[in-house]
Amino acid sequence: MRAVDLIRKKRDGKELTTEEIQFLIKGYTSGEIPDYQMSALAMAIYFQGMTKRETADLTMAMVNSGDQVDLSSIKGTKVDKHSTGGVGDTTTLVLAPLVASCGAPVAKMSGRGLGHTGGTLDKLESIEGFRVSLNSEEFVKNVNEIGVAVVSQTGNLVPADKKLYSLRDVTATVRSIPLIASSIMSKKLAAGANAIVLDVKTGSGAFMTEYEDAKKLAREMVDIGNNLGRKTVAVLTDMDQPLGFAVGNALEVREAIDTLKGEGPDDLYELCLTLGSYMLVLANVVTSSEEGRKKLEESIRTGKALKKLKEMVAAQDGNPEVIDNPDLLPKAKKVVELKAEKSGYVQKIVAIDVGLSAMLLGAGRETKDSQIDLAVGVVLKKKVGDEVKAGEALAELHVNDEKRLNDALSLLKNAFTISDEKPKGKPLIYEVIQ
Amino acid sequence: MRAVDLIRKKRDGKELTTEEIQFLIKGYTSGEIPDYQMSALAMAIYFQGMTKRETADLTMAMVNSGDQVDLSSIKGTKVDKHSTGGVGDTTTLVLAPLVASCGAPVAKMSGRGLGHTGGTLDKLESIEGFRVSLNSEEFVKNVNEIGVAVVSQTGNLVPADKKLYSLRDVTATVRSIPLIASSIMSKKLAAGANAIVLDVKTGSGAFMTEYEDAKKLAREMVDIGNNLGRKTVAVLTDMDQPLGFAVGNALEVREAIDTLKGEGPDDLYELCLTLGSYMLVLANVVTSSEEGRKKLEESIRTGKALKKLKEMVAAQDGNPEVIDNPDLLPKAKKVVELKAEKSGYVQKIVAIDVGLSAMLLGAGRETKDSQIDLAVGVVLKKKVGDEVKAGEALAELHVNDEKRLNDALSLLKNAFTISDEKPKGKPLIYEVIQ
Repeated sequence: MRAVDLIRKKRDGKELTTEEIQFLIKGYTSGEIPDYQMSALAMAIYFQGMTKRETADLTMAMVNSGDQVDLSSIKGTKVDKHSTGGVGDTTTLVLAPLVASCGAPVAKMSGRGLGHTGGTLDKLESIEGFRVSLNSEEFVKNVNEIGVAVVSQTGNLVPADKKLYSLRDVTATVRSIPLIASSIMSKKLAAGANAIVLDVKTGSGAFMTEYEDAKKLAREMVDIGNNLGRKTVAVLTDMDQPLGFAVGNALEVREAIDTLKGEGPDDLYELCLTLGSYMLVLANVVTSSEEGRKKLEESIRTGKALKKLKEMVAAQDGNPEVIDNPDLLPKAKKVVELKAEKSGYVQKIVAIDVGLSAMLLGAGRETKDSQIDLAVGVVLKKKVGDEVKAGEALAELHVNDEKRLNDALSLLKNAFTISDEKPKGKPLIYEVIQ
Repeated sequence: MRAVDLIRKKRDGKELTTEEIQFLIKGYTSGEIPDYQMSALAMAIYFQGMTKRETADLTMAMVNSGDQVDLSSIKGTKVDKHSTGGVGDTTTLVLAPLVASCGAPVAKMSGRGLGHTGGTLDKLESIEGFRVSLNSEEFVKNVNEIGVAVVSQTGNLVPADKKLYSLRDVTATVRSIPLIASSIMSKKLAAGANAIVLDVKTGSGAFMTEYEDAKKLAREMVDIGNNLGRKTVAVLTDMDQPLGFAVGNALEVREAIDTLKGEGPDDLYELCLTLGSYMLVLANVVTSSEEGRKKLEESIRTGKALKKLKEMVAAQDGNPEVIDNPDLLPKAKKVVELKAEKSGYVQKIVAIDVGLSAMLLGAGRETKDSQIDLAVGVVLKKKVGDEVKAGEALAELHVNDEKRLNDALSLLKNAFTISDEKPKGKPLIYEVIQ
């Protein structure tokens, strides 16, 4: 087998066999197949696509390129959740304890990420003492005893994807549905999930801005999961404005606590109930999403969900008092208000600009080695559709270092569009694909 | 400017600017743009094509990546000829002296090539003493004094093409019309031609097997030439069976001598008259191809053409007696006949298999470092349409080393199809594109 022949085959729109895909991924991971052949192949895939079978094979070949997490010693069906990313996405912080409190085991590996804010691990570390790097025994023990653990990744998971993603990033081959889908799904599979709920975002703040593209991606990932024996459901959700109010690490932890008390932002609450209800269905805890929703609502109402978060924090050596008293979270020195210059309705909030504004304040990583300031970020005071009077606060900037405050302010200001007419409401949840 | 953005632009079917193309080729030649970006770009070009303007810009950017031959001290319009390759192509050996004998200066740089037989330089070196590496002064002096010189390339011409071609070869991006066309034309332009006649072959023995592809390539090259101020004409010709009878270095020199005497194979003669007549037109020696044809015929009839070859050989330190006595050329130890197993008409001769058969005997290079045996090769005794009786010779194999003779014989045998019906004649010259 020669890589050049397989590139030609794909270029000509033909289907690669399982063996051929394995040959390519194995060879690429080991370095026998050079970057220049893989990038040409990726571009050919960009144009010619892949069949469902090819995409499933590619996913498995990538899973097999490295270690796989063995969750078999954890009782029950392990459901993982993945979000395609956006701005101010606090769902994992809410969902992990919420779903666990309803009886589905949550054994979650999370990342730090590069972007507007830290990843879930950074956010959790804003709780004093919280330890994200558990060893395998601790991880399994925690999930078996209290039903939940959120930890950093161990082992060398999906090295083929790491290598291929970096290459795609510099060769304009990121935006290929089969390549995106197999990249995401390979990581979920290697992390040991039995079932997967996907939150696929669409809109100006999402990776997939176009609805049809997001839907295709969702369909592709659900098919991969199902083809590989993992029950998979995707929820298509809106990311035209940031989710919730808070964009920043400690700020989002506080928002998660509020949400688990039933006092959080409506959109974040609604999204967590939807995703959570499907997680309970896939974990065989309930038989319908309606039943799941009721169970989740009850858990929040009775305080079980919040209690689960407290247990998780304590089990991972974090200070559990933070849950009762969020003022113990890191706080920025200064809060600056962004005030509305005119009265009207909030027509639009460009999510990406809110995210960048938070990053300028230090909430996220611009490069892999950037230091994150856990206290800082942005808290929206108005969301799309809200009425606002001139002089009223649109958002708060939580600031420690004022060096780039002016840039952050002007970026945030430009993110808002205020106009006389009340905008038509847009749904938060578009569609469920299973 | 970033390469990844330009790859994306081309991927999305947009037109690259002159500056962007220059940036890409400059960066690739210097090594700043890595192979993996260039191969992704080449694949994007494969799918999205290039406009005429882009292709001309790409050609010039490649020309500018290295040295250019300055032929300005040679009087007259310098017309170059290029053939897209095939099997047994002896045209340069005939055309250079033939056209020069009619008054058009021929300042030709040629190559050694990798393939069934050697390149033009290897063929010429089968003439005792012939020197292909003249310095610039000798080259110019010879052309000015006797009207013709065929030499090896000097200087570092079109390094971008060398690098890009090797990359395309291993990334399945060779078969892109704008990339092929710009590769060929950049080399002709860098070699200093004022005008170019292209022999674009089609058929089973050609690089472009399909007529429509060959025509597109011809059109593309003519447009590049004209866009860059070089009068360019392409002749679409048949390469379904080998051209002429001989496939092998010294064997082809002998055939060229025969042709210049008017005693060569009909197809080679006809092709040389067609290409030569357009060369004379572009060199402003005649005003029509008909007039050119007459001039060429006369030169052959009167012996002027053959005399010019003899002058050229002498001027490049070769033994001119070879021209009068071709038996002085290297001769193989043994001639083995391939005999027809049944009577009938030659229906088909697969050119590529004849070429490979000659290569197995040692006539060509399998790898860059292979040693060529100038004496060996194949001489066809029958061509398509000829009647043959069982036991009659179809071809001769001129052999020195018998190690792979059996393979060569069976390959050659399979190249021939004999059947009862006389095949319909196919034209040799299909179309002239200008």
